[in-house]
Amino acid sequence: MKTFYGIGIGPGDPELLTLKALRVIKESSIIFVPASKGKSLAKEIVKGHLMGKKIIELNFPMGEENKFNYKEAAKIINEVFRDIDVACFLTLGDPLTYSTFIYLYREINKFGIKVEIIPGVTSYNAAFSKIKLPFAVKNESVLITDKNIELDKVNDIDKIIFLKANNKKEIIKKLKEKGFKNYYIKRCTLDGEKILMDEEDIEKDEDYLALIISIRE
Amino acid sequence: MKTFYGIGIGPGDPELLTLKALRVIKESSIIFVPASKGKSLAKEIVKGHLMGKKIIELNFPMGEENKFNYKEAAKIINEVFRDIDVACFLTLGDPLTYSTFIYLYREINKFGIKVEIIPGVTSYNAAFSKIKLPFAVKNESVLITDKNIELDKVNDIDKIIFLKANNKKEIIKKLKEKGFKNYYIKRCTLDGEKILMDEEDIEKDEDYLALIISIRE
Repeated sequence: MKTFYGIGIGPGDPELLTLKALRVIKESSIIFVPASKGKSLAKEIVKGHLMGKKIIELNFPMGEENKFNYKEAAKIINEVFRDIDVACFLTLGDPLTYSTFIYLYREINKFGIKVEIIPGVTSYNAAFSKIKLPFAVKNESVLITDKNIELDKVNDIDKIIFLKANNKKEIIKKLKEKGFKNYYIKRCTLDGEKILMDEEDIEKDEDYLALIISIRE
Repeated sequence: MKTFYGIGIGPGDPELLTLKALRVIKESSIIFVPASKGKSLAKEIVKGHLMGKKIIELNFPMGEENKFNYKEAAKIINEVFRDIDVACFLTLGDPLTYSTFIYLYREINKFGIKVEIIPGVTSYNAAFSKIKLPFAVKNESVLITDKNIELDKVNDIDKIIFLKANNKKEIIKKLKEKGFKNYYIKRCTLDGEKILMDEEDIEKDEDYLALIISIRE
């Protein structure tokens, strides 16, 4: 049966691809990749497995709203699907975690195409493996967010993970006051990976692929 | 350099192992696996890659406190390490997410052994790929917990994931009142996988490998 796969390729290290992701990439006649300004990090990460494959780049500028693009991209995928049985879309990390794929999936669904999703290793799980501290132990709660939450309500929460955090300075200041220790991890498992803990260094950094892990002390 | 690896093998589907996990398993002279009542699910999941490998089962009854066992296990690992360079411990899901490995890691550290951690696909990310709903989209917050949190404080939270939840009946009742829809996923990506939504069915089920996903409607 014709199937379109949303594939999580993990945080960046090509070795953090799953065996399932690799198999489906190999089985796909056409591989769609998200691109921004003519570059596709997803394609770069799996480049070792793309020999002889037809790749179609879909333009989704990172960090921007792309409603029109999702509709257009779904149309292109639907047209391609007339002639083939298996295709996939690659997504950094996990396909259902703050990803472009979610919006694309909703549009593809409207065409009645069968979609399967292959989960991937998230950037934050990889980040914890780098700082070598637990994401959670027994009786702990973790909040994952991409917005400036009301920090008065975090009394029960042991760790907070900020993905794509905009207002880093304010977040870090408030969490420090509340007794949290902050780790800033950029480009986790990619070239240029850095773990920053100095507040000024964190404020200065402007990498899009960065997250903050705040741990109650 | 001598290195001990904590390896996340993913939620259960042997294909959700990462390429890195597979490489390190193959490079390891000895593979430690957690066992409970003489059975090791972790060993079962990777059995296709264990040909000719020396396996040592460490007994950690699931869901119980095991302080003594961690110390004993770390002693065994330290003794083994006199003679070899690479060994690993396999853990379901991710090694730093509510896992046995975290406690073992703390004990191994005391012996000065170099430890590296390979992140894995979590059960809850796999569960979202099965119900085909987003873990999070832009401007959403997700809480991950294994305890009965104070649900009065969840106003800002869009999704709650209960891992190893004890008081299912109460959790589900309260969340329903607060406008959440509940999905119970057991044995995700394993034989016997089931998604339950009927409250009575959920209450009756007693599988240890189960989680609840609550989504604000």
